[in-house]
Amino acid sequence: MADKIKVGIVGYGNLGKGVEQAIGRNPDFELVTIFKKRSETQLEEMREFIGKVDFMLLCIGSSVDLPIKAPEIARLFNTVDTFDAHTKIPEYFASVDAAAKQGDKLSMIATGWDPGLFSAVRGLLDAILPGGKTNTFWGWGVSQGHGEAIKRVPGVIIARAYTIPIESTLEEVRRGSRSDFSARQMHKRDCYVVVEEGADTEAIRRQIVSIPYYFEFNDTTVTFVDMDTFQREHSELPHGGHVFRAGDTGAGANEQLAEFHIKLSSNPEFTASVMVSCCRAAWRMYNEGHRGAVSIFDAPIGYLSARDGYSLRKELL
Amino acid sequence: MADKIKVGIVGYGNLGKGVEQAIGRNPDFELVTIFKKRSETQLEEMREFIGKVDFMLLCIGSSVDLPIKAPEIARLFNTVDTFDAHTKIPEYFASVDAAAKQGDKLSMIATGWDPGLFSAVRGLLDAILPGGKTNTFWGWGVSQGHGEAIKRVPGVIIARAYTIPIESTLEEVRRGSRSDFSARQMHKRDCYVVVEEGADTEAIRRQIVSIPYYFEFNDTTVTFVDMDTFQREHSELPHGGHVFRAGDTGAGANEQLAEFHIKLSSNPEFTASVMVSCCRAAWRMYNEGHRGAVSIFDAPIGYLSARDGYSLRKELL
Repeated sequence: MADKIKVGIVGYGNLGKGVEQAIGRNPDFELVTIFKKRSETQLEEMREFIGKVDFMLLCIGSSVDLPIKAPEIARLFNTVDTFDAHTKIPEYFASVDAAAKQGDKLSMIATGWDPGLFSAVRGLLDAILPGGKTNTFWGWGVSQGHGEAIKRVPGVIIARAYTIPIESTLEEVRRGSRSDFSARQMHKRDCYVVVEEGADTEAIRRQIVSIPYYFEFNDTTVTFVDMDTFQREHSELPHGGHVFRAGDTGAGANEQLAEFHIKLSSNPEFTASVMVSCCRAAWRMYNEGHRGAVSIFDAPIGYLSARDGYSLRKELL
Repeated sequence: MADKIKVGIVGYGNLGKGVEQAIGRNPDFELVTIFKKRSETQLEEMREFIGKVDFMLLCIGSSVDLPIKAPEIARLFNTVDTFDAHTKIPEYFASVDAAAKQGDKLSMIATGWDPGLFSAVRGLLDAILPGGKTNTFWGWGVSQGHGEAIKRVPGVIIARAYTIPIESTLEEVRRGSRSDFSARQMHKRDCYVVVEEGADTEAIRRQIVSIPYYFEFNDTTVTFVDMDTFQREHSELPHGGHVFRAGDTGAGANEQLAEFHIKLSSNPEFTASVMVSCCRAAWRMYNEGHRGAVSIFDAPIGYLSARDGYSLRKELL
């Protein structure tokens, strides 16, 4: 590839910083600009980069920012994002699709590791073993949204929430169980919380474990720690997860099992790495004439790689 | 999909039978014909199916049959095969590519689980974690080629060879080791052999463990069993394997680990299931105008699935 893929980063939290570093590890990319701060005039400032960047990498939140900003930006630029509100994907896809088509652009939505890499694995295994059962576990790892939810409880200074698969359920699934498990059977949450001096910890614990949506469906333990302990033991952002598929083949229903597992020391950096390789695939698809919204399911696997077809076949096939 | 994908099966060993059964589980396929026996006139008989089948699924061996027959058939039909001689893939690809282009056809080579599904996983992880280390382990499972090699030793009636990962090496890799391991450090082989009455078992054992290429690079144990035991305990074709990727992200080199694992009760049936879903992808690619040889790296992930884009995004993204 003679020409580098010229990108801008929109949003400069953990994910945006991770993308900046991932670009440093992928020499076929060139970082042109970073939009670090929100501003009323951001869209106007972006317009100055029309013709100067091939893709905007949207490193902004899924709950509030992406649903509003992604369609606006998708009218002006090719985009890649990490939209991760699973249940809202069809609606989000439709909105970004319409905008990107208006602008004659391409947007790859919902990249990262889940959705993203895990979706690709689920898609492959669902195709190969039709009629089987897929189960996804998340963790052990930090769920940032859950930590933020705890922080809104009065008296809480800072908090980390870990999502942890229930080992016995995971083992059942690993052995081939195709049962449906409840949220409570699949995951528990461990929270580490720093509170203001003199706070009523038991009242705060009761409030946390009953926060609607975030904690009501899982068993949750709350441990109060001092700020030193918190910073020493809970400042990293590890994560991980498992995708399982159990299915049958043949007339005699032979059992076939698959498991995909990741263990990440940095969730945002790994998410960023997936995002950058998806951007490479999206750029190739754009150059072939694809327009509108797409997902990792639309990308040829080899398009994610910097290798050419010969190298892929020789080294990895 | 209104029209079913009409296929013929070429070769009717374990794989061909597995494909027949996989088609039964994929209602968008229609089995038109099976070429069960080799014959001098097979290619002439196939010509009668021009216009009547969309794909020939080549369920014949990689060592002798595919290199000769695949290019011949690829001039007449779209094909899918499970060519699995990893080191010979570039040469095989070139030969099938030229033939398929001559015939204005498409051939997807080297499907199955390795190459095939494992290649897809290696490709995704290599793209996401550039500069990292990939390791593939095979087994526990039956290596059919190795059993055949033992059978050629005089005095041997029948034999099964199991490939088994060395647990300590696998654990090292699982923990993130990026060392290069020798064949002997990665896999051992356990063989179960039925011999003729009065055979010199120690001489046979020595011959087996020194069979060039097949056994010289691994530690091999040989156990002699009677025919009843053999049929009771060694008549199935289980297999499995692991793909590992270890890489770094970020400025601080955060370690990111991934593992993909499959455990198959029937190797040929699973291979057949991958082959059928790859045929679906190849059919869509053919209809879009792709010609020549392709591999799983060229296929959009979603093309392997019978689901439409909306269902993929809603259920699996």
